[in-house]
Amino acid sequence: MEILRTVEDMQRFADRVRQRGRTIGFVPTMGYLHEGHVSLVHIARRHADVVVVSIFVNPTQFGPGEDFESYPRDFERDRRMVAAAGADCLYCPDADEMYPPGYQTTVCVREVTRNLCGLSRPAHFEGVATVVAKLFNAVKPQYAVFGQKDFQQLVVIKRMVRDLNMDIDIIGAPIVREPDGIAMSSRNKYLGTAERQAARCLSRALDAVRSRADEGERSAQALISLARGIISAEPLGRIDYVKVCDAVTLQDVERLEREAVMAVAVFFEKARLIDNTILHVDGPQP
Amino acid sequence: MEILRTVEDMQRFADRVRQRGRTIGFVPTMGYLHEGHVSLVHIARRHADVVVVSIFVNPTQFGPGEDFESYPRDFERDRRMVAAAGADCLYCPDADEMYPPGYQTTVCVREVTRNLCGLSRPAHFEGVATVVAKLFNAVKPQYAVFGQKDFQQLVVIKRMVRDLNMDIDIIGAPIVREPDGIAMSSRNKYLGTAERQAARCLSRALDAVRSRADEGERSAQALISLARGIISAEPLGRIDYVKVCDAVTLQDVERLEREAVMAVAVFFEKARLIDNTILHVDGPQP
Repeated sequence: MEILRTVEDMQRFADRVRQRGRTIGFVPTMGYLHEGHVSLVHIARRHADVVVVSIFVNPTQFGPGEDFESYPRDFERDRRMVAAAGADCLYCPDADEMYPPGYQTTVCVREVTRNLCGLSRPAHFEGVATVVAKLFNAVKPQYAVFGQKDFQQLVVIKRMVRDLNMDIDIIGAPIVREPDGIAMSSRNKYLGTAERQAARCLSRALDAVRSRADEGERSAQALISLARGIISAEPLGRIDYVKVCDAVTLQDVERLEREAVMAVAVFFEKARLIDNTILHVDGPQP
Repeated sequence: MEILRTVEDMQRFADRVRQRGRTIGFVPTMGYLHEGHVSLVHIARRHADVVVVSIFVNPTQFGPGEDFESYPRDFERDRRMVAAAGADCLYCPDADEMYPPGYQTTVCVREVTRNLCGLSRPAHFEGVATVVAKLFNAVKPQYAVFGQKDFQQLVVIKRMVRDLNMDIDIIGAPIVREPDGIAMSSRNKYLGTAERQAARCLSRALDAVRSRADEGERSAQALISLARGIISAEPLGRIDYVKVCDAVTLQDVERLEREAVMAVAVFFEKARLIDNTILHVDGPQP
């Protein structure tokens, strides 16, 4: 597995792959990898000849007071996991390589960044869209794989790619969960034993909501109340949001009439966890 | 010469060129072409195997009350000129292809867009950077050629390309002038006979400034006063700005100590003309 640290080296690697008529699948990460990331590498491998994983803890997507400094990092462990997952190249630029002096350009995706995490983290998605645009230009992939756990991020990236005519297929990958239902996340490391136990309320709430929707409930408010009730029963959690949104526009919906998503964000002490579930609807109820 | 109208067709054309190991040189325009544009095509041809010219009058770079509606258009004449100049492909998407319903992404280059035309045309360069990013992703060039008449635009595009790690060489091309010194521009069409005569004061002022700088003048204010004097002597002109800026940061300078640019924008009735000259400096005067 090649390990590359500069934009220039990454682009020349990508050029060589493409000149041989082979395709590149890309998995951008912030490192501290888990089985969810490994599943993304496997999905990339199914689509492309050569798989590139990037690790970059992007400072511009963290707000003031957020966990940029404390975000978990373990390069040696990550490197072994990426190699074991079968990736061909690990791209890990440092912050000076990504944002040299004089840097001043951002990519802004408007409507779909206004709700959900965009409400609590105002500059987050501008940081995400910008760094992903940069990574795409360095890695030059035909395919890029993003986990659906960060559902809004996936929507933002799809929108950016479509709007800016980037010739890249964006593939959303299913959420990978721990045996107890908690969605895998590098930030689960922040959870103490009691919080970890409490955090199971997220997937419990989403399971209950999906069952209720499958039974025919179409009122977003009814589903939100159900989820809030389950999450609020855990005294260690503090709800940031519980919302039902259109799966494409991410605008709040009142009734389930097209594909929607229930998305939740809950603080457990210093960990802010997010989770979601797609709510498929065949059509409006009579 | 191929004429392509969709992003998809353009990208497949570019893929075929690149798969044959050939390079693409790109000249983005808003049409109503003149000899300045033709010179850009010739420069692209010197760098690349295949030359693509785009014509798109981009609505998002015109402000309210500006000349989007009246901007001159003549597709048949443009098509003949592009073919005669030796281009291989003419890319001319329409506005619905570029900005379909739901479109919501912009590219923003900050510091270098704040001065000069960015002062009088606040959203202009966001529109320019965004449309050029889109055109680059459709045309996939290794080289792109921009005229130095739009000096700030050239600086903005260079900055965007560098910041977003786009793997494209940006080539600045010398200003092409009419025999009477007026910089070629599609907007010269707006000039009546008397205004056309008056507009010669721009290049006269810039020539005088360059001579004075060559003689050793290092005070930006002295050079600005000289230029304003010459331009103000023409009653048909109304100065928007006359500035001396650092050629890289575009910040106003007080003294010529590194490469600088004098840039001017002057209204003649409904035409707003811009022009500039680079001021080379070997080092600070003693």
